[in-house]
Amino acid sequence: MATKIILDCDPGHDDAIALLLAHGSEEIELVAVTTVHGNQTIEKVTRNALAVARIAGITGVPFAAGSHRPLVRAAEVAESIHGESGLDGPVLPEPTLRVDERHAVDLIIDTVMAAEPGTITLVPTGALTNIALAVRTEPRIAGRVKEVVLMGGGYHVGNWSAASEFNIAIDPEAAHIVFNESWKLTMVGLDLTHQALATPDVVARIAAIGTGPARFVVELLEFFGQTYRETQGFEFPPVHDPCAVALVIDPSVMTVVKVPLDVELTGTLTLGMTVADFRAPAPADCTTHTATDLDHDRFWALIVDALERIGDVEL
Amino acid sequence: MATKIILDCDPGHDDAIALLLAHGSEEIELVAVTTVHGNQTIEKVTRNALAVARIAGITGVPFAAGSHRPLVRAAEVAESIHGESGLDGPVLPEPTLRVDERHAVDLIIDTVMAAEPGTITLVPTGALTNIALAVRTEPRIAGRVKEVVLMGGGYHVGNWSAASEFNIAIDPEAAHIVFNESWKLTMVGLDLTHQALATPDVVARIAAIGTGPARFVVELLEFFGQTYRETQGFEFPPVHDPCAVALVIDPSVMTVVKVPLDVELTGTLTLGMTVADFRAPAPADCTTHTATDLDHDRFWALIVDALERIGDVEL
Amino acid sequence: MATKIILDCDPGHDDAIALLLAHGSEEIELVAVTTVHGNQTIEKVTRNALAVARIAGITGVPFAAGSHRPLVRAAEVAESIHGESGLDGPVLPEPTLRVDERHAVDLIIDTVMAAEPGTITLVPTGALTNIALAVRTEPRIAGRVKEVVLMGGGYHVGNWSAASEFNIAIDPEAAHIVFNESWKLTMVGLDLTHQALATPDVVARIAAIGTGPARFVVELLEFFGQTYRETQGFEFPPVHDPCAVALVIDPSVMTVVKVPLDVELTGTLTLGMTVADFRAPAPADCTTHTATDLDHDRFWALIVDALERIGDVEL
Amino acid sequence: MATKIILDCDPGHDDAIALLLAHGSEEIELVAVTTVHGNQTIEKVTRNALAVARIAGITGVPFAAGSHRPLVRAAEVAESIHGESGLDGPVLPEPTLRVDERHAVDLIIDTVMAAEPGTITLVPTGALTNIALAVRTEPRIAGRVKEVVLMGGGYHVGNWSAASEFNIAIDPEAAHIVFNESWKLTMVGLDLTHQALATPDVVARIAAIGTGPARFVVELLEFFGQTYRETQGFEFPPVHDPCAVALVIDPSVMTVVKVPLDVELTGTLTLGMTVADFRAPAPADCTTHTATDLDHDRFWALIVDALERIGDVEL
Ligand SMILES: [Ca+2]
Ligand SMILES: [Ca+2]
Ligand SMILES: [Ca+2]
Ligand SMILES: [Ca+2]
Repeated sequence: MATKIILDCDPGHDDAIALLLAHGSEEIELVAVTTVHGNQTIEKVTRNALAVARIAGITGVPFAAGSHRPLVRAAEVAESIHGESGLDGPVLPEPTLRVDERHAVDLIIDTVMAAEPGTITLVPTGALTNIALAVRTEPRIAGRVKEVVLMGGGYHVGNWSAASEFNIAIDPEAAHIVFNESWKLTMVGLDLTHQALATPDVVARIAAIGTGPARFVVELLEFFGQTYRETQGFEFPPVHDPCAVALVIDPSVMTVVKVPLDVELTGTLTLGMTVADFRAPAPADCTTHTATDLDHDRFWALIVDALERIGDVEL
Repeated sequence: MATKIILDCDPGHDDAIALLLAHGSEEIELVAVTTVHGNQTIEKVTRNALAVARIAGITGVPFAAGSHRPLVRAAEVAESIHGESGLDGPVLPEPTLRVDERHAVDLIIDTVMAAEPGTITLVPTGALTNIALAVRTEPRIAGRVKEVVLMGGGYHVGNWSAASEFNIAIDPEAAHIVFNESWKLTMVGLDLTHQALATPDVVARIAAIGTGPARFVVELLEFFGQTYRETQGFEFPPVHDPCAVALVIDPSVMTVVKVPLDVELTGTLTLGMTVADFRAPAPADCTTHTATDLDHDRFWALIVDALERIGDVEL
Repeated sequence: MATKIILDCDPGHDDAIALLLAHGSEEIELVAVTTVHGNQTIEKVTRNALAVARIAGITGVPFAAGSHRPLVRAAEVAESIHGESGLDGPVLPEPTLRVDERHAVDLIIDTVMAAEPGTITLVPTGALTNIALAVRTEPRIAGRVKEVVLMGGGYHVGNWSAASEFNIAIDPEAAHIVFNESWKLTMVGLDLTHQALATPDVVARIAAIGTGPARFVVELLEFFGQTYRETQGFEFPPVHDPCAVALVIDPSVMTVVKVPLDVELTGTLTLGMTVADFRAPAPADCTTHTATDLDHDRFWALIVDALERIGDVEL
Repeated sequence: MATKIILDCDPGHDDAIALLLAHGSEEIELVAVTTVHGNQTIEKVTRNALAVARIAGITGVPFAAGSHRPLVRAAEVAESIHGESGLDGPVLPEPTLRVDERHAVDLIIDTVMAAEPGTITLVPTGALTNIALAVRTEPRIAGRVKEVVLMGGGYHVGNWSAASEFNIAIDPEAAHIVFNESWKLTMVGLDLTHQALATPDVVARIAAIGTGPARFVVELLEFFGQTYRETQGFEFPPVHDPCAVALVIDPSVMTVVKVPLDVELTGTLTLGMTVADFRAPAPADCTTHTATDLDHDRFWALIVDALERIGDVEL
């Protein structure tokens, strides 16, 4: 049976691919998509999410706009990576889906509280502002979701600073809330996603699919690859967000270990760092986990498979 | 015309008096009461609020329970001051009002968004968790409330630590959010409320009213006076929360100055301190204010007046 | 019997007056002068100290240069207040005294260890870097000095930030070390020194003395008065550093209370704040004190008296 | 020509081995040994250093006692690892060397300032308090030492907390001073030293030497191995401090990379973490380096070689 997920995202090139992967996978039922400030403003990422929905042929799924800024800190966006629109590169179609009238926080709460307990997986691939607001406003969702599988953080690797990753660094208080809740949480961080490189052979395989959505992914990877090359010195771009979705689809796609995780809120050099304590085996009541090693081939096979299942979409 | 207020409180002895003052004043229309963790757990303070409503004869006003814990930090309660129930001292009646089904955050948002812009004053007299969650989930309320008049903080005086006051210290991130929003905010802090002492002549005047609600206030002041004497060395107890309500009723009851205010989030000795910058005249775009000097007689006259107007209430 | 002091300073207009006051007072024996980065670079303040020595006719006292920078933080200077030289305004003579070959830290240690226990008072009127280094390198001085009487900090008033004073703020770690040592310490902070205003009648009385050193003080006050008016909105300049010397000369010149004091090292808004805990009577083992109220007339009488005793000095 | 080093240590089991390695190596000339609080109190570690000197037959080298506590923080010792004496396990002989009359800080300054520029390597294997005090009191040593090669920190590994190593964590302000000075600095941290395990074959080879100093090392490793097994879950103990000495002896014993390093001073979870920025190639003016990979065989060969060169020592 497919796993029901709420994808909370800030498209964003890799968020767009994550959305395509979720939509195209048989193992996933996309029950809601919510957006959050991050790679660009909430207006832009919401519009991008709707445009991707049209490209992917997603219908019947509510899309709701969420938080326009972090809980405490001033807003930051990742224009150097994702461009002015947040999804620079491809030409985007006009969205046809209408945004849900509810706030993302309300949609998350309503969806989780209405579903059978233990059936909804939250998959955040942006800042954790919406998830934090949801669980503080309706604490019962902590006991009702199946688990949280998020893209963000890193136990040894940073990108927004030497020690912190963008999604966590831009709203560390929200991340602190989410990492310290009682739910099962798995961090798919930079240590993992820097293994998910879109190498030329991968891009070629996707291009060979020949459909509109596949061409869209290739265009995303071309733009993303260029900004990663220029601003971060990567030969091939790491494709972060789909890794979290991939773990929901197929746990064997990566190694996951249980380890105490927490988010640094006061460090001068380490603000927003996700601190893992590997000094001893995790205690029995530890609810946090981190992904460590990716099966590169299996991961990209999931992407290709999803795109093939989506097929061509009439725009 | 009476000012519409939402009282967001954690009764709490002084919260109870604040509720009576708001209910008994002709200058105030109580449109909602919301509760928040603080002096005791959310369950206890909500029950206390409903019990006070019965004592005061409040009907037709929605009471909603709010946040059970701070945004980021672990919960703390003020049992040393307010006792095990949060309102130790008087015998409390069974509540007759039913708690609203909505979460306090939703009730605040709904009430503000449904009212004419600029007509609702928020009067928080506890931790600022509910208000912070409301304005982050629905940012438009920042431009729609009339103002925020809160009890909390202090520019030169602390009680929970040398430099911080309880309401701010237990949820400093929430306070940081509220103090930095775009609305007009007035801090009625310890510098002011330590002037609002329930001296014996004041207690005698209230006792002389002879009604049930007045007897209740006398019992509150007796318990509160004793814990303040024993734990903080006060000869007579400072009655904090009604001061914020009093300022809404009659601006001439205290001096208020415009000054930049912010909340310290990382200090070791100063966490939760409300830092005022008195070095220069406040800039034109400064939206924060603080009360400085209380007209003691006028303040207590407002309390007596409200209790007289409430009269006796059939339980 | 005169009190032996080591004046550790960063002249600086008010440091210069402090030096004149110490030299001119019968109650003080100046056993060493040490300099520290602060109002200007160590080179400039050391040169200024020697120039003031010539103006004041100080001979037979070792002057040693000390730390060129704070312990941990990057150096800051107060050019907006003291000008490019650190002592702008008067024309300074070439120094005739030679600087001691020892580092200030070594001179402090040597002087304290060579003197009878309990006879040397340390009077820092700049950053506390030298004192901190001395007591960490030779911890026995903590038990051998008579006491520390310093100008710096403030329990309710800041100048370098809303909550911090310059001398403490530029080297908070050094201040933390000094405030937490076992010696008796008295803080003469901004709360006190903002009462030591050089009003026109005071300046007139000093001018009337008619000597070279008195004219020098008038010139200092004119420049200092101007920068304080322009940058901090003071009508008349507060003359900070001589207040600490004045307290050593005559304890009746100000009220001093015992109160726990500590220095904030991690605050975002409060870094370098000297936090006083006035919530309860100071515990018996409390070694920290703060000055609160100045006898303005008595203070300026000490200054006038010292200048008269110094008389005219041949340059 | 042998490299002149000052070994600044807190023996400590691995410090003792570091001292033996330095003494027994032809590539090193031990010009001074200084001690610092850390594994135990300054009195105990100083006594231990002198006892090791007797065991190793070290004469003609000044040993000076240094700081008894960290710069700012309260003192902590590592009794769980090194026992009550700081060197539990072997029976220690009465020292025959007398401790130098100078403070360690003065001995370091005197030694560096008296030597040819660029000839002295500082090798700290404990908290960095002495080194920090020395360079702040005499800043010219920063330009006169050859380099600093220290044991401490870790870019991905902690032991005193999840993110920090003991030597750095117990005096982070001192470490911050040392890491940010202008000298060339190489961190030999836990990432490296956790590769320097005293495996049974290594212990057997040392035991086979058959001399008194070799037996002493075996006894050290037995005690150290036991506490590491019991408190930190190590199968074989990591022998930290000799790694720094080994790098001075033979740079080919480990891989060293240039990378910006800094010390976190305000983190809640990360206080004392040595933060490395691996995101991009180190800038040209970067002076900090870290060791990454150890040649295990070559390292232990250096230890065996030094013990053989020391031979038997008459007690
Ligand atoms: Ca994303
Ligand atoms: Ca309250
Ligand atoms: Ca000064
Ligand atoms: Ca050591």
